[in-house]
Amino acid sequence: METRDAIRARRNVRRYAERPIAPDDLDAILEAARRTPSSMNQQAWDFVVVTERPALESLSHVWRYASHVSSSAATVALVMPTSTDADERETYQYDLGQATMSMMLAAADLGIGSCHAALDDQSLARELLGVPEEREVAWLVSLGYPAGRDLEPLDDIDRRPLGDVVHRERW
Amino acid sequence: METRDAIRARRNVRRYAERPIAPDDLDAILEAARRTPSSMNQQAWDFVVVTERPALESLSHVWRYASHVSSSAATVALVMPTSTDADERETYQYDLGQATMSMMLAAADLGIGSCHAALDDQSLARELLGVPEEREVAWLVSLGYPAGRDLEPLDDIDRRPLGDVVHRERW
Repeated sequence: METRDAIRARRNVRRYAERPIAPDDLDAILEAARRTPSSMNQQAWDFVVVTERPALESLSHVWRYASHVSSSAATVALVMPTSTDADERETYQYDLGQATMSMMLAAADLGIGSCHAALDDQSLARELLGVPEEREVAWLVSLGYPAGRDLEPLDDIDRRPLGDVVHRERW
Repeated sequence: METRDAIRARRNVRRYAERPIAPDDLDAILEAARRTPSSMNQQAWDFVVVTERPALESLSHVWRYASHVSSSAATVALVMPTSTDADERETYQYDLGQATMSMMLAAADLGIGSCHAALDDQSLARELLGVPEEREVAWLVSLGYPAGRDLEPLDDIDRRPLGDVVHRERW
């Protein structure tokens, strides 16, 4: 798919079809994450990819709005170093945001929907994924073919208008 | 450009050609930012786009590693609400990371290079851009055609290998 179409077709998908994601396609999505730029190229991230149904169902309980994880074909847990330094944490988060969007656009290119989720039960996530204490599960990105309509470029989206969000030369 | 090629062609560019970015192309990059998903669709962001040379030169002084901003064809300042709440700030940063990557891939699709920069002189950035106290300039994303080789898909990049960064089913 052309990049501009993938950007316009990407949307949050919370109900997924049963269709699995082919291993090569899943790797293409993870490769996009790996290639993402990061602050000082620190790459302070790890990606735990889960595809087994019982594990996905368990993982969906880490946040009350993460139920879409349970029907996903795969969910990627975005992991960052545990830190109490506020600046460091903010930079990790910014970098994870970049990796998230790389994955989402790589997925949209393949007709695969996505949705991110926060989590509020860190200890459950860590236990389910086997993530060590010196790492923290920051976000989940669920992936799968939509149960409803296919991904296609959208004209109308629920966003602030361009003239509101963009300031020319000065605020 | 195909999405997969844009993902592989995107690279940090710090030396830019004199060639300006056509207004429609700049708007396509900003439109990609606008369309980015965010936590609870909060869209807690604003984008100040600077194209005037003297302003770009001044803006390059907000961080010692932001000199690439001065030769860019355009630089987008990513602005978030001022906040002292750590969780809120981390979520804003994650969302700004997503918007950054949307812009970078939309730019790569057009053969336009990009590079992000942090900043450490917040008051200078705020003064130069006219950003009010209740907002904070978090990052800059410079944009422009490369002074050196064109963007093209890269096989070899300075990143951790996929087998290191990706964990299958569990850590």
